[in-house]
Amino acid sequence: MKLTVDNINPRVRAAKYAVRGELAVKSEEYRARLNKGDTSLPFKQIISANIGNPQQLDQQPITFFRQVCSLLENPKLLEKEDVLISGLGYKTDVIERAKWLLSHAGSVGAYSASKGVPAIQDSIAAFLESWSSALQAILYYLLILYLGRDGFPANPSNIYLSAGASSGVNTILNVICTGPQTGVLIPIPQYPLYTATLALLDATPVPYYLDESKGWGTDVEAVRNAYEKATADGTDVRCIVVINPGNPTGASLPEEDIQAVIDFAAQKNVVVMADEVYQTNVFVGKFHSFKSVLRKMQQEHPGKYDGVELVSLHSISKGMVGECGHRGGYFELVGFDPEVEANIYKFVSIQLCAPVIGQCLVELMVNPPKPGEPSYKLYREEHDGIFQGLKQRATALHKAFSEMEGVECGEPQGSMYLFPTIKLPARAAEAAAAEGRTPDDFYCMRLLEATGICVVPGAGFGQVEGTTHFRTTFLAPGTEWVGSIVKFHQEFMDKYR
Amino acid sequence: MKLTVDNINPRVRAAKYAVRGELAVKSEEYRARLNKGDTSLPFKQIISANIGNPQQLDQQPITFFRQVCSLLENPKLLEKEDVLISGLGYKTDVIERAKWLLSHAGSVGAYSASKGVPAIQDSIAAFLESWSSALQAILYYLLILYLGRDGFPANPSNIYLSAGASSGVNTILNVICTGPQTGVLIPIPQYPLYTATLALLDATPVPYYLDESKGWGTDVEAVRNAYEKATADGTDVRCIVVINPGNPTGASLPEEDIQAVIDFAAQKNVVVMADEVYQTNVFVGKFHSFKSVLRKMQQEHPGKYDGVELVSLHSISKGMVGECGHRGGYFELVGFDPEVEANIYKFVSIQLCAPVIGQCLVELMVNPPKPGEPSYKLYREEHDGIFQGLKQRATALHKAFSEMEGVECGEPQGSMYLFPTIKLPARAAEAAAAEGRTPDDFYCMRLLEATGICVVPGAGFGQVEGTTHFRTTFLAPGTEWVGSIVKFHQEFMDKYR
Repeated sequence: MKLTVDNINPRVRAAKYAVRGELAVKSEEYRARLNKGDTSLPFKQIISANIGNPQQLDQQPITFFRQVCSLLENPKLLEKEDVLISGLGYKTDVIERAKWLLSHAGSVGAYSASKGVPAIQDSIAAFLESWSSALQAILYYLLILYLGRDGFPANPSNIYLSAGASSGVNTILNVICTGPQTGVLIPIPQYPLYTATLALLDATPVPYYLDESKGWGTDVEAVRNAYEKATADGTDVRCIVVINPGNPTGASLPEEDIQAVIDFAAQKNVVVMADEVYQTNVFVGKFHSFKSVLRKMQQEHPGKYDGVELVSLHSISKGMVGECGHRGGYFELVGFDPEVEANIYKFVSIQLCAPVIGQCLVELMVNPPKPGEPSYKLYREEHDGIFQGLKQRATALHKAFSEMEGVECGEPQGSMYLFPTIKLPARAAEAAAAEGRTPDDFYCMRLLEATGICVVPGAGFGQVEGTTHFRTTFLAPGTEWVGSIVKFHQEFMDKYR
Repeated sequence: MKLTVDNINPRVRAAKYAVRGELAVKSEEYRARLNKGDTSLPFKQIISANIGNPQQLDQQPITFFRQVCSLLENPKLLEKEDVLISGLGYKTDVIERAKWLLSHAGSVGAYSASKGVPAIQDSIAAFLESWSSALQAILYYLLILYLGRDGFPANPSNIYLSAGASSGVNTILNVICTGPQTGVLIPIPQYPLYTATLALLDATPVPYYLDESKGWGTDVEAVRNAYEKATADGTDVRCIVVINPGNPTGASLPEEDIQAVIDFAAQKNVVVMADEVYQTNVFVGKFHSFKSVLRKMQQEHPGKYDGVELVSLHSISKGMVGECGHRGGYFELVGFDPEVEANIYKFVSIQLCAPVIGQCLVELMVNPPKPGEPSYKLYREEHDGIFQGLKQRATALHKAFSEMEGVECGEPQGSMYLFPTIKLPARAAEAAAAEGRTPDDFYCMRLLEATGICVVPGAGFGQVEGTTHFRTTFLAPGTEWVGSIVKFHQEFMDKYR
């Protein structure tokens, strides 16, 4: 029997991933037409605001990182240090770092150990543990980057290098889920990797809704209600996913919310999966890692939280690094049973190892140039320039949304996204239905056709029934594209009002 | 309920991957002890002959490839072409290729399209189609590398860039398998990725045995018998995996065997999954791709083979490229239903994209320097040097095995492995059982402890009941380690005879 859509794995068929769905495919077709000189389209470029892909848009890679990578790729250059320094302007710390990484990783063309290069696990552990969070709270912005994050011990052997955070999520959910009886608490709206992976594993997503009226905050009562309902239905709820800062919402959680989630997890013995890939994209308040909050709770209430199982994930794809094409990241396990960890090890070993140059970029991310080192000044300028640029673009886009008819959008707090609500006229919903589309899908398709701007309909992330949202990144440079959205929206509203 | 080994996903628990199992873990512990100056071990280095990891051992990366990668990582170097050329010895074709790749891939730090960079799909298609196989057969060794492989059209949109071939295998098996009722024909011995992935998908491996007495050839009667038996048991057999050249066997299939498999697949409507990652590691005869054989059969018997569904996989990890740490590869789909392809697209899009620098290495592999180009001479020398080195080491190791008591091993034909049979004394089997080990596991553990050489027991790949094998790569430089195996083996036999 030949393979058809009706006899393939129904779990693959059921999985949905709107970030790269129909709209994204159509935008790539438009891009190809533009590249071939097609002038019949009403726009001159495609703006891929559907995906957090910093370097496809304005974000330049950090010079230090890429200089080191160039030497990792071609170690023979290290035989000509004088040319590197005098001819190409490489600083001595670039050369030293490359030598250090090569001495530990060997060739970047060789498989590493399954969990990653041991010396890089050590660097991540040092990054995680090397500063106390009390001082960190005071000196956060200046110190986080070179003095470490949490101030609590981290064991390198609990750290697994991964091909981006996505691969880590896939690993953990594969180990946790045993079938439809397994439930995983998922925020709604959520990054669709979670529901897609659960669909592939035939496990049950247990949605808990974030509260848009409170800046998309995590309300532990909503979590508890979702848990109780699923449990009453016979679902074995084993894990809670928290995305902080939020994707697609951009929310940045206060410490109390994290404490409440951990307390809930401790009561119910559910694994906490903390997706913290946007930890440096924070514009309001500060980032609190689940690990640091957990460790503080363990100190303050001896014994009470010892059983908590936490996975925290990070990535080189986002933040000021923005190296998503290199597929690098890591996850740290806290409180896992050693036999369970052995199965996690086996699972990752089947995939051999994360890309080694991506692993090296993880090392560079957690251990960037420090004050006094030759590359520090440029690193600092580039880093801060990217951060300020993101913040400015977020603010400008938010301002535009706040002036658009029927659009509401919370203040940008973190991550790379805004997730506005749109109140569309009834006639727009009718026109959408006539085309077999939901209103959000219809709106986003018209936006793409009119402006070349690709965003993702809210349904791709989940939204309260009857509401309409879309997610857009604020990575694209300039303000012209923001003007295009404003103009399109006005015309759309005029047409369907 | 906390996660324990008893309540996690039983499919993860059931999966086995001996290539990175207990022996590999123990060898890494020894390596760490040696690195810390431990002199109590009876060896001075670890030889990881358990995994095809060329650059961890002797194989040097191809200079042209890595020079291009260094520029992809740091495109600012392209502003100083004079320094690159006069100071660093970069040829103009290195610079041109880097510019070409950057113009099509953009930043290697950006996500590509889900299926890969379109221009790289085009390059792979050109590689696959650009020479007729009749001429290729005559001029094989000289021409394959710069005049293309199959001589039949390839459609770039059917080509998917992947993170090594492993990721491609995972994608296809996820789409094909629907549960325990799905059967997949697997050669025994096999590369354990296949049984591990089927275990994770809760699908049923249907083993067909390769014939050791005929150089581990693929006997289609064995395939047919396995198919009939599984079908009679109610299994829906949907796919046949063929690894050519073989892993762990090293066998290189003649064209007739490939024809027979395709003919079988056409009769039974099973997907052919051709794992062709060792296609340039061929020492005897020549490599025949499943795609070229299928296309010839389709020409010679119009209509008869039109329905055949073929996936062929290739990788940058092996061959003279050996860049496994970069996690690059591709698969080509032939004869798949477009709706099934749409689900394959969706599956890969959930993982976002293959590492982009690995994708660029795929482009370099399929489109290396050509005669007359500035980098050609060095490329040719390096390429041929690696090939000859592999062949010599294979021959030397084979010679050693053929002189060892109770060891039999077929002539090296291809891939990177030898898979000798060992006839162990009955007392060795008793000693193994007393330790709770199988004889092959026991032998390999004693070998590691005595010599620091890590190989993989035959059970990790599957073997006929009652026989004992191990797999070793022939990548390690020098002959000293071969001598260590000979010495260990003699002492082992003397002890247990």
